[in-house]
Amino acid sequence: MKILLIGATGKLGTAVHKTLAGRGHEIVTVGRSGGDLRLDIGDPAQVTEVYDRAAERIGTLDAVVSAAGDTPFKPVAEMTAEDYAAGFRGKVLSQIELVRQGTARISARGSFTLITGVLARDPIPTGSAAAMANGAVESFVRAAAIDIAPQRVNAVSPTVVTESLPDYGAFFPGIASVGLDQVAAAYVRSVEGGQTGQVYELA
Amino acid sequence: MKILLIGATGKLGTAVHKTLAGRGHEIVTVGRSGGDLRLDIGDPAQVTEVYDRAAERIGTLDAVVSAAGDTPFKPVAEMTAEDYAAGFRGKVLSQIELVRQGTARISARGSFTLITGVLARDPIPTGSAAAMANGAVESFVRAAAIDIAPQRVNAVSPTVVTESLPDYGAFFPGIASVGLDQVAAAYVRSVEGGQTGQVYELA
Repeated sequence: MKILLIGATGKLGTAVHKTLAGRGHEIVTVGRSGGDLRLDIGDPAQVTEVYDRAAERIGTLDAVVSAAGDTPFKPVAEMTAEDYAAGFRGKVLSQIELVRQGTARISARGSFTLITGVLARDPIPTGSAAAMANGAVESFVRAAAIDIAPQRVNAVSPTVVTESLPDYGAFFPGIASVGLDQVAAAYVRSVEGGQTGQVYELA
Repeated sequence: MKILLIGATGKLGTAVHKTLAGRGHEIVTVGRSGGDLRLDIGDPAQVTEVYDRAAERIGTLDAVVSAAGDTPFKPVAEMTAEDYAAGFRGKVLSQIELVRQGTARISARGSFTLITGVLARDPIPTGSAAAMANGAVESFVRAAAIDIAPQRVNAVSPTVVTESLPDYGAFFPGIASVGLDQVAAAYVRSVEGGQTGQVYELA
């Protein structure tokens, strides 16, 4: 399949790239600081540019895969209205735009796979913007799946990644981690399988 | 208790007002088109004004109760990026701002009760923006509860309201409805009880 991968340079994106490439897929990568296309999907106009330039490179896409999304982490009392708005633009609207603009761009039975995370269901201190963003994406996926059929949309919702425990483990006390290989497998399941409207909770 | 009620003129807000007033609470009402204070919480600056003027009227609040939130309903293909942003401002950021700005305004063990809805978990066609907003609020509530303790925050998440079936029933085929009295009871439970971080799913 021809696949567009957003967030290709992060730890997760690198693993997903390796797994999908190993299965013979042709991939165009997008990142703010690296990849085939250096663009920021936090800006809806750049999402349009991503699709224009990806089409020039490999033609009609079969799958769009996102491993990108930033949100601020602070206690509620230290957040600003702009922090929550930034979390919305950086992880929610960015991924919604991949789907909204993408339905007219990808193949008739193509798919979208978005990234969320455990904080939607298992909150931690300072995580209110991340939780908000993850909950938004997960509920969007369930609803959008109805409207865009037979195209498909799913979300991958991992807990803390085992390979990131040295950096982030202290924020997830007693919460089981998940290996990057398992997270990458969920992307494969979404891209190559037939399910839609699913949130793959990994933990 | 001294209670601030936002969205006081709608069908739900009217029922919540009647129930809370009947239990002896002192209530200041806020609405875009009616109520003691005519302000729009979709604008963070007006949230500040709501708190300033409510304090002038009745002093320190014990509870903030929201029955307000608008989102567009259209198929994904007919949505614009601005539609999703409007849904975020109108139902997510508006209610987050009530909490974020409110922690410094309400009593030490005061509470916030926000409104979401069934579309977060049971999607319908054209409901992707509403689902996004409801999912965002529900996950925010779970996470924010940690940061703001001993203040509390909960969400009321009703299915379609029985009294609204003539208008909206066709959009919820086979989905059970819930009476306004039961929805109002969930607000009482949140305001007068001791729970926090809860999403009261009704129906």
